[in-house]
Amino acid sequence: MIEITGQSLLAGNWITPAGKTFQSFNPYNNASMYRFASCGSDEIDEATHAAESAFQTYRNLSGNTIGLFLNTIADEIEALGDQLLEVCDSETALGTVRLTGERGRTCGQLRAFAELAIKGEWVQASIDTAIPNRAPVPKPDLRRMMKAIGPVVVFGASNFPFAFSTLGGDTASALAAGNPVIVKGHPAHPATSELFAHAVAKAIEKCGVPIGVFSLLQGVGNELGTGLVKHPLIQAVGFTGSERGGRALMDIAAARPQPIPVYAEMGSINPVFVGPDTLQAQAESIATGLSGSVCMGTGQFCTSPGIVVSVASELFETTLKTKLSEAPRGYLLNPQIAASLQASLENLNSHPQLEWLNRAGFEAGSMTPPNAVFKISGKDFLADKTLSEEVFGPVTLYVECENEAQIVEVAESLNGNLTASVHADEDMDLAKTLFNILEQKVGRVIYNSYPTGVEVCPSQQHGGPYPASSVSTSTSVGVGAIVRFARFVAYQGTPDALLPEALQSENPLGIYRLVNGELTTAGI
Amino acid sequence: MIEITGQSLLAGNWITPAGKTFQSFNPYNNASMYRFASCGSDEIDEATHAAESAFQTYRNLSGNTIGLFLNTIADEIEALGDQLLEVCDSETALGTVRLTGERGRTCGQLRAFAELAIKGEWVQASIDTAIPNRAPVPKPDLRRMMKAIGPVVVFGASNFPFAFSTLGGDTASALAAGNPVIVKGHPAHPATSELFAHAVAKAIEKCGVPIGVFSLLQGVGNELGTGLVKHPLIQAVGFTGSERGGRALMDIAAARPQPIPVYAEMGSINPVFVGPDTLQAQAESIATGLSGSVCMGTGQFCTSPGIVVSVASELFETTLKTKLSEAPRGYLLNPQIAASLQASLENLNSHPQLEWLNRAGFEAGSMTPPNAVFKISGKDFLADKTLSEEVFGPVTLYVECENEAQIVEVAESLNGNLTASVHADEDMDLAKTLFNILEQKVGRVIYNSYPTGVEVCPSQQHGGPYPASSVSTSTSVGVGAIVRFARFVAYQGTPDALLPEALQSENPLGIYRLVNGELTTAGI
Repeated sequence: MIEITGQSLLAGNWITPAGKTFQSFNPYNNASMYRFASCGSDEIDEATHAAESAFQTYRNLSGNTIGLFLNTIADEIEALGDQLLEVCDSETALGTVRLTGERGRTCGQLRAFAELAIKGEWVQASIDTAIPNRAPVPKPDLRRMMKAIGPVVVFGASNFPFAFSTLGGDTASALAAGNPVIVKGHPAHPATSELFAHAVAKAIEKCGVPIGVFSLLQGVGNELGTGLVKHPLIQAVGFTGSERGGRALMDIAAARPQPIPVYAEMGSINPVFVGPDTLQAQAESIATGLSGSVCMGTGQFCTSPGIVVSVASELFETTLKTKLSEAPRGYLLNPQIAASLQASLENLNSHPQLEWLNRAGFEAGSMTPPNAVFKISGKDFLADKTLSEEVFGPVTLYVECENEAQIVEVAESLNGNLTASVHADEDMDLAKTLFNILEQKVGRVIYNSYPTGVEVCPSQQHGGPYPASSVSTSTSVGVGAIVRFARFVAYQGTPDALLPEALQSENPLGIYRLVNGELTTAGI
Repeated sequence: MIEITGQSLLAGNWITPAGKTFQSFNPYNNASMYRFASCGSDEIDEATHAAESAFQTYRNLSGNTIGLFLNTIADEIEALGDQLLEVCDSETALGTVRLTGERGRTCGQLRAFAELAIKGEWVQASIDTAIPNRAPVPKPDLRRMMKAIGPVVVFGASNFPFAFSTLGGDTASALAAGNPVIVKGHPAHPATSELFAHAVAKAIEKCGVPIGVFSLLQGVGNELGTGLVKHPLIQAVGFTGSERGGRALMDIAAARPQPIPVYAEMGSINPVFVGPDTLQAQAESIATGLSGSVCMGTGQFCTSPGIVVSVASELFETTLKTKLSEAPRGYLLNPQIAASLQASLENLNSHPQLEWLNRAGFEAGSMTPPNAVFKISGKDFLADKTLSEEVFGPVTLYVECENEAQIVEVAESLNGNLTASVHADEDMDLAKTLFNILEQKVGRVIYNSYPTGVEVCPSQQHGGPYPASSVSTSTSVGVGAIVRFARFVAYQGTPDALLPEALQSENPLGIYRLVNGELTTAGI
């Protein structure tokens, strides 16, 4: 068992910063637990300088070494055993079943990025050989590949304490590309973050990589995150959280003397569309499936379905209402989310055009919200833009349209989203129209299913137009996430002795390269 | 012969806007020529709405149709014949030899992007097939590809009136990806832009693509460009020009309710490093080569070498001075650039630590500047950050260092650049040190050559860390530029009838796709 000390890990040193203290919170029993102190500008400066210094070594390590490091991190996470699950469950109330699955996904991500680093092909090497006698000017030899960019800041996410936090996908992809990472731990699960920091510290020691390659800075308030994003040595930011938080970081990063990219995965209402004839045929099954998706993780997924858009159906309405009311209440992650959801439910309840179909109590201080469904007409929904904003929690709006045309109008009115779902087996013409609209507004269009459950595979796209994401061209899930933390460098007329291995003539790494336009593993 | 009317092309209609008038200028004889009027908010609104409307058709056109359109544009540019060269030469003084070459490059770019669109593989299609009986949850079918993003604004560049202006690389790549383009014509060559608009208008008619797919809005002042970047329907911006101009657009785009990407290719001093022993051995040849690179295009390339960093060498200094003084003076593009260069030369001349080695006159109103070389010690260069800023014109600084360590220190002090060159046949240890530093600061490292002359090929990288570019991960030269104007969309569990052709099971386009992790042209 590792003792939770409340310290931060600053480039290999466990430190107790002098900033504001805070405690983690147990949603199950409303008890305060471990005490932590916040890092400030001194720790930011030390951690970033240590990261930059480590970068000068780490960026030139072989893919095998980086891969071994990532695999060792995964091993060390597993070696934390049940303590990790128990500590995290006490801080998040996510339950050990879910957390066991999320741990598997987290270690799987680390190992997938390890494989990527070891294989070495992610750098997209390409070579165009010289034509010295070309007229009117000789063609030079040009070779290009992706290279690491430098220290990256990753913000832990409250709703994925493993897969999108300290050693989650952002950290794994940044490390795999050859960048040091400074994690700003989420204050809602600081003890969990501390355990992860132990795992990475052990991996650093075992693999002999520079200690500055990882720091975990704990803290509450905005100063720590703001200070990290402003620091001139930081080259990119990974963030998963609210639109307000993500936009604040985007604005700070854009205002720097040297602007840097912020890869923020933010709010989304993940609309679900149901064609009229399909609703008629499948009212009960769709209402049941949707109810499960709304309740999953107590609605605390970025892919939680916040609205369902169709025509009137009493059977659908009744089934949805009943299923949501019958589903057991889950726990929210922390008091901030509970307070925010309480306020949102009050707002929705007092909205003159909204009807709370399964009205239920949610007293202040409670961590277990009702699974709520509201109803509104398509016309009224279209008239109020604020209803397109995310409500974080197990809440969905049934937007009851008059006809297909109004369903289409609702689709056209939407902002950027991570996903949109279409149930339309009996409405294929409408489905075509909706797909044409929705593929312009979301990162993932789903047919006949629900948005929760994000498969990790190369064809996954987790990222959509703003405000779903800050950079809609990138994905934060899947191995494609690595390119966020690298950039292309070309080498002209450069001898092998000065080239990275991936570009040397004999192809010592044996990777696929685009040589004069053709993919090949052959040397030149 | 096409009559130059001074109009703008707004979605197929030639219009005379009511805004501020301006004239193009002949650098050869200081004469004012064609008169134009500036577009304003009405034209912005009309052009963007026409573009959005065209987008709904254009985004779904086949790669063959888009390819035909781009090829036809290239044909129509060639059909403009000598008039294009003559009009442009009269507006830019670039000379018909250079312009003939640039026209070839411009048509070549259009045809390369046409080929990309026709082939259809640029969308990076990938498919992961379903595993319905996977435990604990079934694996869904996921398919992903790149799709167009919507109306793009392209700013014409003064220094490349063909290759980076109305129908240059930014426009070609945005159109190829399936996006409409609104060009903000550069006010220094408006008649040239008007001719290009005739070419694209003919191609639109011949190919039957929607007329809103292209507009050319002419104008002086900042309002037109600012208004375009702020317009909510615009989804991305392409820009080549000054750091000040590019940063202004970046700031505007970042402050929008929906921030959008600005792909700005901006300032660069393109340092050239020469190892001490190599300087000893090759002083004359390097000085001669460098002189040619400095004078090329009257120094008006983004890759013009603004500093050369080495140790003291009388032979190098004398040769460089002599070659630059002997080289014929070229013409500057426009009076704004001339005035700016005059001010810069005065500043440099009055700098207490700088010595103008080949001081020569450059009176106000002249369009033919001296080819200038200044000298400064490494220590003094390091002490003055302003000397790392670009001077646009045929000017270079000889930074005379005390030793190798100081050369390295200068390399470490540099900001982001498009390129860096290293001459070091006799200094391989220094070369290794420099490559390790410079590959972190530039987009292209060049060995034993000079930065001007940008080869168009897949391994080219034209874009470096800020302030060289706004988005250092992207390139504005080469077919890789297309991905700037597209984003990934994933389709889950979607039947063929609702999928784009590139993702349909039988692979009707016959393109390479990543199917369950393996590249193949086979259907599934």
